[in-house]
Amino acid sequence: MERILNIETIKHTGEKVRVCGWVNTRRDHGKLVFIDLRDRTGLLQIVCQSALVKDIKEEYVLQIKGIIKERPENMVNKEIETGKVELQAENVEILAKSSPIPFDFMAEDLNLKLPTLLDYRPLTIRNPKIKSIFKIGEHITNSFRKTMKDLDFTGFESPNIVPAVAEGGADVFHVDYYNYNAYLAQSPQLYKQIMLGAFERVFTITHVYRAEPSITTRHLAEYTSLDAEISFIDSWENLMDICEKIIKNMFSDLEENCQKELSIHKVKVPLSGKKIPRIKMREVQQIILERTGRDNRKEPDLQPEDEQEICQWAKEKHGSELVFVTHYPTKKRPFYTHADPKDPDYTLSFDLLCRGLEIVTGGQRINDYDKLTANIKKWGNETKNFSFYLQTFKYGLPPEGGFALGLERIVKQVLNLKNVREAVPFPRDMERIDQRLSTLQKKKTKKSKR
Amino acid sequence: MERILNIETIKHTGEKVRVCGWVNTRRDHGKLVFIDLRDRTGLLQIVCQSALVKDIKEEYVLQIKGIIKERPENMVNKEIETGKVELQAENVEILAKSSPIPFDFMAEDLNLKLPTLLDYRPLTIRNPKIKSIFKIGEHITNSFRKTMKDLDFTGFESPNIVPAVAEGGADVFHVDYYNYNAYLAQSPQLYKQIMLGAFERVFTITHVYRAEPSITTRHLAEYTSLDAEISFIDSWENLMDICEKIIKNMFSDLEENCQKELSIHKVKVPLSGKKIPRIKMREVQQIILERTGRDNRKEPDLQPEDEQEICQWAKEKHGSELVFVTHYPTKKRPFYTHADPKDPDYTLSFDLLCRGLEIVTGGQRINDYDKLTANIKKWGNETKNFSFYLQTFKYGLPPEGGFALGLERIVKQVLNLKNVREAVPFPRDMERIDQRLSTLQKKKTKKSKR
Repeated sequence: MERILNIETIKHTGEKVRVCGWVNTRRDHGKLVFIDLRDRTGLLQIVCQSALVKDIKEEYVLQIKGIIKERPENMVNKEIETGKVELQAENVEILAKSSPIPFDFMAEDLNLKLPTLLDYRPLTIRNPKIKSIFKIGEHITNSFRKTMKDLDFTGFESPNIVPAVAEGGADVFHVDYYNYNAYLAQSPQLYKQIMLGAFERVFTITHVYRAEPSITTRHLAEYTSLDAEISFIDSWENLMDICEKIIKNMFSDLEENCQKELSIHKVKVPLSGKKIPRIKMREVQQIILERTGRDNRKEPDLQPEDEQEICQWAKEKHGSELVFVTHYPTKKRPFYTHADPKDPDYTLSFDLLCRGLEIVTGGQRINDYDKLTANIKKWGNETKNFSFYLQTFKYGLPPEGGFALGLERIVKQVLNLKNVREAVPFPRDMERIDQRLSTLQKKKTKKSKR
Repeated sequence: MERILNIETIKHTGEKVRVCGWVNTRRDHGKLVFIDLRDRTGLLQIVCQSALVKDIKEEYVLQIKGIIKERPENMVNKEIETGKVELQAENVEILAKSSPIPFDFMAEDLNLKLPTLLDYRPLTIRNPKIKSIFKIGEHITNSFRKTMKDLDFTGFESPNIVPAVAEGGADVFHVDYYNYNAYLAQSPQLYKQIMLGAFERVFTITHVYRAEPSITTRHLAEYTSLDAEISFIDSWENLMDICEKIIKNMFSDLEENCQKELSIHKVKVPLSGKKIPRIKMREVQQIILERTGRDNRKEPDLQPEDEQEICQWAKEKHGSELVFVTHYPTKKRPFYTHADPKDPDYTLSFDLLCRGLEIVTGGQRINDYDKLTANIKKWGNETKNFSFYLQTFKYGLPPEGGFALGLERIVKQVLNLKNVREAVPFPRDMERIDQRLSTLQKKKTKKSKR
């Protein structure tokens, strides 16, 4: 007999079926036992003679054969999708046993401290509310890919082991690569640009790595980047147009296909208005000054509270919980960023903020070989470390740019999660790789004596 | 004026258009110059007055405005898809210049030695035949994902930084993780299994890492793994059924959508017959003995020439260039592999060979907590390093198994490439990360003095 899924039982009233799943709850009523059996589609009530399920406890995995019966009207459970039926068990087989569960990780409103949530990730991920976070993540990734393919982008696999540091800064992870120094990629930037020479428009969904020296609610040491790069742009504003299309498609897709997941979290997708506003960083600082009295007009970047405030402004003025902030200072951006020809202290770059947090960063790149070479030096790098990459520009690359969406940050902002670590099944940070670092082996080098 | 693509020009005869692309070739005929302009859709012939394109050479990037004309019958070029038309240029703008090209990397039958091919990857990737390799790779990945979604699998992002070595062996890359020892994942195995507890059937497309100590034509240090894991299996043979479905869908998809790419490489997709044969490793060795006289019946694994030979056998006997080889010895497989209850020296595992090379490996896993814990010790590991993972089994996981497809190996076998390095844009091996290692910095530790 083929196994059927719990959700399918409602179409099989009166028939004998086989179902499989985990014991979600067990309620004993004398000789009768009621089990809520959980599979990937939800719960199903099983009614059995107690003798059939003697030693069976929560999280045991069962295979049950029996007859699907309609429940009497007054016993219908409207809370679950199979609430009109139940299965009268004739045969119960244990597929796997479980130790007594350490706490009620299936609770509807599981409210654990983050370290506990993550220490027990293999269990907490079974909770429907937590599980739904990763369904949202998968939808976002698929929606990004779909828009990319609709716009004739070519997908590729970008390597994660790289020979040089492209984004600058000290926050890189070192890899011992056959006794040579290598690094984990901070971004697929250079590879996207190389690929443009063959494909004109490319995207990659890849992991990137930042050895963040501190713990915040918005940084991960390993995260998923949804990366696009486009050549033959007429203006750097084309990039924001495409980015806006991706985001709007993504949010429509969530609204259409993830109502269940959104409602578990009691959230709606962020408003993006008719058109997402675009505003220069210096103008943002002016608005902040006017709205809050905080004078950050000389700062080279926005502070987290400024990002919150400008999103609030965008919502009030433009009905959008998203805002493009443009023209970040040249010295704060990587070597490949294109300066604004009208004001070279600022760049043709943008961040997209959503509900107070940067979820996309992008901009036009330098495609002129001589300017790029000069900038590599100016940023303190050696051109010989970039000679492979530089071939792309030495032999002709059109005007181009691109951007990167941070998957986990989008999930966090859509679901109003408190911490980006909740948005990824297996977050990496300076305290944890699955287990807490303190339980792992320290590196045996002089550096580790701290 | 909106840019149109070269392929679209055939629908715009008599109209003024704007096209953009690279100078593929330039032919001077007195005052007239013929340029083959290349964009992502192919070539277009441009006719211009020589004054318009004075200094323009190969790989310059141009924007050209002009009128699309039908060519006279005797001037039609059947070799290119736009061969019935040409563009009479009125205005030519240089979008990017190019240095003189170092060799003819656009040659139809580019026949470079592998190191040269890779040293110049940013250029060689522009060659249509080479570019087509990565189009095939993208199709294979998308086809895998499509079959997974059709079968109700949930996709997830598996982390690449891991705290412990799951597959065994010394071929792991070490990462300095905030002064703790960490590793690059050899496979997403443990994470797939954890995810089963929530989703029952999962897949991930992820990079995996093997610090291979030698160079062969079939190994990469970083490669893309198409990974699936399935619970509630009735038999480990279910795994091969699903794997066969993925492969057959993949090959049909290539036949339907990639004829152009397949014909550039003068290949057909591998035959898979009515059903891919399934045969035990010990029986394979018997057949090898009978066919070749080579007696490898005591060997714990197949040799490359045996893999070739058994695929030849499968083609002759079953009309399939693929064959499942099953029941590899227990001691050659990782700790989580399920032994055959009838003969515990052998496992419920399989490899799928294609045209003489392993492209998939998989099998049933141990889902019993006590047996798994015992095996971790037996394989010489400490259970405390796996305590996170072990929660999955401590709290009930059904019978399950899975497999991993090596993306680049499938590309190699489909296209009959000589070396798996050709199948990935940016291969990593013990001699190269883009540039040759000899041009990079050695690690400053005692270990590096060799």
